[in-house]
Amino acid sequence: MLDSYDRKYLDLAIEQAKIGWQEGGVPIGAVLVSDREVLAVGHNRRVQMGSAIRHGETDCIENAGRLSASVYRNSTLYTTLSPCYMCAGTSVLYDIPRIVIGENHTFEASEEWLRSMGKELIVVDDEICKSLMQMMLSERPEIWAEDIGEPV
Amino acid sequence: MLDSYDRKYLDLAIEQAKIGWQEGGVPIGAVLVSDREVLAVGHNRRVQMGSAIRHGETDCIENAGRLSASVYRNSTLYTTLSPCYMCAGTSVLYDIPRIVIGENHTFEASEEWLRSMGKELIVVDDEICKSLMQMMLSERPEIWAEDIGEPV
Repeated sequence: MLDSYDRKYLDLAIEQAKIGWQEGGVPIGAVLVSDREVLAVGHNRRVQMGSAIRHGETDCIENAGRLSASVYRNSTLYTTLSPCYMCAGTSVLYDIPRIVIGENHTFEASEEWLRSMGKELIVVDDEICKSLMQMMLSERPEIWAEDIGEPV
Repeated sequence: MLDSYDRKYLDLAIEQAKIGWQEGGVPIGAVLVSDREVLAVGHNRRVQMGSAIRHGETDCIENAGRLSASVYRNSTLYTTLSPCYMCAGTSVLYDIPRIVIGENHTFEASEEWLRSMGKELIVVDDEICKSLMQMMLSERPEIWAEDIGEPV
């Protein structure tokens, strides 16, 4: 179930996605929250940092710094787009129990696997998240293909 | 099947693991090779960079920079230790078809999943890789627990 706090944190992730777009990058953002405290925000930095591993979710987890297992296990990860396998695998490594997903129309790969690993997923189907990715697919398709390891 | 080239590249990953240990970190190293060309080397940098996402394999993939899908799809990833789910997921994202693993006695989580995703895994059971991790477990157990998201 999505509550008002979830909406607030997803909006923060969307703000991050917009920053990424304005920087010339991939418009995907993420937020890591534990006990209603924002531990970190992040966004995809493939273009900005020349990075192959800084997706929205992994950038956010990196920005949160070194954390003990108990913090991750009591957290929710908010992401504007359904996680790729790298980001899904990062959530499984750190046993993050709950993931709120802005949308999964543009891209979806790992949800069945994440559920099989015991994760709670909430898919919001948010119009802003979808429109950001539509801009991406229309204006920067080759960067998007690179970001998900697909041939152009 | 392990060939003489594989042994050479695994040795390069072991060299990276030793550097990581000498730096005060987690002794896990990796090498990405495509068409017998070393694209990048890397090692775990949790301690050195305060990083939650720079495992040996992800550090190596980050160091390789932005690559097109066709390069990853023609590559082998060498790692001194069986990959965690983050690193396994990164290999699945980029469709790296073949992973040579130094050892899986100290840690093993993702191998069955990776095989189910069509990856070829070669487990070497290398004594140096195992002894590096034995040092880690003995001298820096709390950092190791943190690295794999386990409570201390």
